[in-house]
Amino acid sequence: MMDYFRGNVTAMAAYIPGEQPKPGSQIIKLNSNENPYPPSPVVLEVLQNFNSESLRRYPNAYGEDFRLSASQVLNIPSDWIIVGNGSDELLNVVVRACTEPGKKVAYPIPTYVLYRTLTQVQSAELVEIPYGENYELPLDQLIATNAAVTFIATPNSPSGHVVPIDELRKLASKLSGVLVIDEAYVDFAQENALELVKEFENVISIRTLSKGYSLAGVRLGFGIANPKLLSGLYKVKDSYNIDAIAVAVGAAGISDQVYKNDCVAKIKASRVQLAIALKQLGFRVWDSQANFLLVQPLEVNAKYLYQKLKEQGILVRYFQETRLDDKLRITIGTNEQNQILINALMNLLNPVPSPLQGEG
Amino acid sequence: MMDYFRGNVTAMAAYIPGEQPKPGSQIIKLNSNENPYPPSPVVLEVLQNFNSESLRRYPNAYGEDFRLSASQVLNIPSDWIIVGNGSDELLNVVVRACTEPGKKVAYPIPTYVLYRTLTQVQSAELVEIPYGENYELPLDQLIATNAAVTFIATPNSPSGHVVPIDELRKLASKLSGVLVIDEAYVDFAQENALELVKEFENVISIRTLSKGYSLAGVRLGFGIANPKLLSGLYKVKDSYNIDAIAVAVGAAGISDQVYKNDCVAKIKASRVQLAIALKQLGFRVWDSQANFLLVQPLEVNAKYLYQKLKEQGILVRYFQETRLDDKLRITIGTNEQNQILINALMNLLNPVPSPLQGEG
Repeated sequence: MMDYFRGNVTAMAAYIPGEQPKPGSQIIKLNSNENPYPPSPVVLEVLQNFNSESLRRYPNAYGEDFRLSASQVLNIPSDWIIVGNGSDELLNVVVRACTEPGKKVAYPIPTYVLYRTLTQVQSAELVEIPYGENYELPLDQLIATNAAVTFIATPNSPSGHVVPIDELRKLASKLSGVLVIDEAYVDFAQENALELVKEFENVISIRTLSKGYSLAGVRLGFGIANPKLLSGLYKVKDSYNIDAIAVAVGAAGISDQVYKNDCVAKIKASRVQLAIALKQLGFRVWDSQANFLLVQPLEVNAKYLYQKLKEQGILVRYFQETRLDDKLRITIGTNEQNQILINALMNLLNPVPSPLQGEG
Repeated sequence: MMDYFRGNVTAMAAYIPGEQPKPGSQIIKLNSNENPYPPSPVVLEVLQNFNSESLRRYPNAYGEDFRLSASQVLNIPSDWIIVGNGSDELLNVVVRACTEPGKKVAYPIPTYVLYRTLTQVQSAELVEIPYGENYELPLDQLIATNAAVTFIATPNSPSGHVVPIDELRKLASKLSGVLVIDEAYVDFAQENALELVKEFENVISIRTLSKGYSLAGVRLGFGIANPKLLSGLYKVKDSYNIDAIAVAVGAAGISDQVYKNDCVAKIKASRVQLAIALKQLGFRVWDSQANFLLVQPLEVNAKYLYQKLKEQGILVRYFQETRLDDKLRITIGTNEQNQILINALMNLLNPVPSPLQGEG
């Protein structure tokens, strides 16, 4: 094969999509931080009544109907909102708008692995700074790096911890580049960074309908920032990046706060229960404000557990990465799913001697 | 405002989205090359029966259900197909995978203006080579340029002309970079470039569901190329770039070839009629194999006509660009819409003296 690609693209490893069993299969899927509950019923009504005229025509380039709904819910003007094809696209657009070879992208690790991929594709300079032992933010190092783009995921994945607003404020005030606060899991947390968006023109909060609103399938994310910051992002994003159905579905979904809050309350309650049960089984469990738990089996190999659970049709997430390869990330499922997981772990950790072995 | 963006992003003009009247308004919209007929009825059935499980979960990263349908229709293996968030995203991904500062992007002009935007965002070197007076391909100059990416839109917009397959073959065989054959309007043409994709590993055909299939609203495009070429593009595209609804809708849409062929036949027949009527009104009309006509009013200013039509609620496309600013691009509408356009033009070109003027 001739060399059609840029050197760094050729050098990159091919992406391997996560394990996605077919809908309807009996797999218990606790590996992608999806919401275990269906989306609001109003979403299905929107689909059932969608008109063919909106399919036939190009969509509004700004996802205006979604912006208006989100604007009301967040109490922020609609021109402070940019809509993306999933929050991933917006992360991508920020990197492309603000960085190039010689410019830096910085973030604390471990965190969302996409930041690394986006930086590599853009040939920008990668600055990964480890979190402290108890996920203390490496604030001074991030300030000293003063990257063109600094990413902070809060709640962070896979740790589930939240970075305090005061530390984010200090970071925003010291950086001359853009601070991206990736709030994909904000619906499950106690606080959010919206006030920083209003205080600092270099801050963008990026959110998604994939987690709290159970709409991972439609790919709808949004960013909240000063319109001055958004103006540069609009130049880079594809004009018609979001489809008309996703906009209508998302507008309905975000407007139904009662339904979303109910789902979130159930997930938070299950999170407490699951953490207790896992601790009782001898796991170290990190405090989480997201819809997943990072856990460390203290007496068994984490990869072994991951594989054994998979054999039983239970998918959890195992990362072959420094600091993570002795841990598992487990999405909070329904109470029923969580109980099946606990039962499976109980059997794996304290195997009942089989009658045959007893006789042997 | 501090300088958060890369220099070339700051220097770029902000994108101004096309005129998109609200669905339901009485505007006759002949400016965006949308299909005037609704999508296949099976598409609405898919929406009405969509299950919430597919909304809740992340979609398949390859748009597998669409690939399987397209594979059958095109009689090509599904791993030769890449699915994008509109064909625009795939054009974008090719530019990002293959070019960088110092590498060239070449194409004949006038053509789709997005190629220029994508090249500018990527800071690659732009090589625009004018078509001949009668849209002869500047083959030797394109071969001599030997760009990392060469774009050929065929049928081309806004001219509607088709580049002969033999010239594309010659180009593909001489280029050491990637040849992107943008076949967005292929459904309205007499021939297509699929055979070149099979012959040359550096050729990708990029298509869309927006035109022939009346699905501009859902943003679904696809590329057809050797899997070796696609492997590099997969590294650059967002993992979950296409939403589950678009994939299901697109799979249903492309499978209903009978319906699509019927719409296309109607549009082609209207194209012949509209061309005749416009010639009778004194326009120069270029031969078109797309769902639009490029026309030149010979005795009136094109921009004046564009504005006067707009005042009457009829949108056509006017480009303030070299070689185009004396012409209009008119999308083929329904026969009824086309007749309203013709009547309006007739009145503008040969105004009936008003009774008041007669009396004056």
